[in-house]
Amino acid sequence: MALARGYAATDASKPLQPFTFERRAPNDDDIVIDIKFSGICHSDIHQVRNEWGNSIYPMVPGHEIVGIVSAVGKNVTKFKPGDKAGVGCFVNSCTACASRDLDREQYMPGLVPTYNGYEADGKTPTYGGYSDSIVVKEDYALSIPDNLDFAATAPLLCAGITLYSPLKHWQAGPGKKVAVVGMGGLGHMGVKLGAALGAEVTVLSQSLSKKEDGLKLGATHYYATKDPETFKALAGSFDLILCTVSAEIDWNAYLSLLKPDGAMVLLGIPENPVPVHAFGLVGGRRSLAGSMIGSIKETQEMLDFCGEHNIVSEIEMIRMDQVNEAYERVLKSDVRYRFVIDTATI
Amino acid sequence: MALARGYAATDASKPLQPFTFERRAPNDDDIVIDIKFSGICHSDIHQVRNEWGNSIYPMVPGHEIVGIVSAVGKNVTKFKPGDKAGVGCFVNSCTACASRDLDREQYMPGLVPTYNGYEADGKTPTYGGYSDSIVVKEDYALSIPDNLDFAATAPLLCAGITLYSPLKHWQAGPGKKVAVVGMGGLGHMGVKLGAALGAEVTVLSQSLSKKEDGLKLGATHYYATKDPETFKALAGSFDLILCTVSAEIDWNAYLSLLKPDGAMVLLGIPENPVPVHAFGLVGGRRSLAGSMIGSIKETQEMLDFCGEHNIVSEIEMIRMDQVNEAYERVLKSDVRYRFVIDTATI
Repeated sequence: MALARGYAATDASKPLQPFTFERRAPNDDDIVIDIKFSGICHSDIHQVRNEWGNSIYPMVPGHEIVGIVSAVGKNVTKFKPGDKAGVGCFVNSCTACASRDLDREQYMPGLVPTYNGYEADGKTPTYGGYSDSIVVKEDYALSIPDNLDFAATAPLLCAGITLYSPLKHWQAGPGKKVAVVGMGGLGHMGVKLGAALGAEVTVLSQSLSKKEDGLKLGATHYYATKDPETFKALAGSFDLILCTVSAEIDWNAYLSLLKPDGAMVLLGIPENPVPVHAFGLVGGRRSLAGSMIGSIKETQEMLDFCGEHNIVSEIEMIRMDQVNEAYERVLKSDVRYRFVIDTATI
Repeated sequence: MALARGYAATDASKPLQPFTFERRAPNDDDIVIDIKFSGICHSDIHQVRNEWGNSIYPMVPGHEIVGIVSAVGKNVTKFKPGDKAGVGCFVNSCTACASRDLDREQYMPGLVPTYNGYEADGKTPTYGGYSDSIVVKEDYALSIPDNLDFAATAPLLCAGITLYSPLKHWQAGPGKKVAVVGMGGLGHMGVKLGAALGAEVTVLSQSLSKKEDGLKLGATHYYATKDPETFKALAGSFDLILCTVSAEIDWNAYLSLLKPDGAMVLLGIPENPVPVHAFGLVGGRRSLAGSMIGSIKETQEMLDFCGEHNIVSEIEMIRMDQVNEAYERVLKSDVRYRFVIDTATI
């Protein structure tokens, strides 16, 4: 065991504060990562504040982690000390199953989240990336392409794969029209990745305040959803709509923007159920679907794709002691487009 | 022009009554069908009573039509007098488009419904199958396999294709688990067709009152949805759920019965929107979708498949003057499983 330093929430109502804790001793299949950068995901805030009702305290959040390998177990083959490595949203999977589903492990029972969960033993809490080191099975660590800006790769581990996986699953590519709803930490990755995959990307944002950015990052069109004309102009336009917002928008209005056989895919989870009218689905064989992160295999594929296309997140770097202030800014959508903690400041 | 005799609704509040009207003179591309049998679809009742708010009176309902070809235009190649022929839910398509989408015409603008619509000229009303003859373009007429019980093929033209199309689109077949919600005119066709396609079919019905029939028609399992244990026992079980009921059931409960990547497909349209929670979709990449009848091409494929597998509807034959009583029985689900009018009784 080794001591790690980080920031933790001790209950739902308090700000994050410095916290020292023990990381497990590495096993033969583990690597130890000296964490360099850790992204801030909106879900960190939900869990720190127990908004999903499943929080375990003390909680060290963070599942957009990149760093340098400092030690490897004797069975480790993919990493050596000095390599760049990343950790995303989970650190074990299919622990309830006989074998690991390499393509869909994120939807299977037994997923072990990177923080706010328990290891496969059911009792050892997991602690995330707002810290200076992590111990992880090599099978759940990712290789980070060397050519990319290191800090800006951190958000790929959650925001990146959350968009890449549905873009691939619903076959976004040349000839396909994709709408990205929301131009935030997730949405801006959807614009970059969708465009790099060859799709024609349209941003549907509340206002046009980020239009210049959206077009620069790869969008072909940018519309304000507060303008009712948008829904008339774009009726029946899209093969795929990726909905990155978790506010309770009118899904029926967005479904009307799909072509026949189109799919609208929810990536965020509104607190309350949303009323859906069957007509919009039946009348065009349309689908309302959901998607959640991606498998380790697909996450590596996404990182390699980003390396080839020089894609990273647009980030704003902060010191560790700015995290509570950063949370408030995330809640106001006042970040372009992802906060990343420089863990050297812990 | 030729006179046809049938039954019509003259407004939303009156029973159907005898009605004489003119069929258009056949064009060179048309065939004339001497109608023998006409199925009763629940949507006939909705439209007769103007429950969708778009009714045109007088209305001759009926879009599950089979009969014998009595005359053909000079350009007709697929039919000759004496052939069996059928007409389903539409008699023209893509009239708003440059070319016909042979695979998805049912979702395109310009569909001309068999009744309660207007021909491509936008002013000539269409009249349906509760009558003794119909004139239709040969491209929108179907060939009926000779080996099948003729009267019992009529419901294939709507109920049959409504189930066949989503079964094929979502790839029901060997190794796939399919649930059919509702054991009525649509549902019983889903059981027969799903089983013939090689899928393992489970019926989810309110009660077990039709269990014996369900198993006889091809279902492997039969569960009562009024028993809450059903939803526990079947959690995460199905690749595909076909929902044939238009009552406002709890879609979220049914979505929880899907495997990851599973789809629940709505075939009926509840009057009001149904609240949907994103969690059931996001947590398993599940889809809530809809499907509506099928193209002419797919309808012919379905009829040929039924011919090969000796599949017809389970029917109760009625006289034309029993139609109003039959409507009341449909509303009470008191039919096993589809009423068919013997048009010789008009």
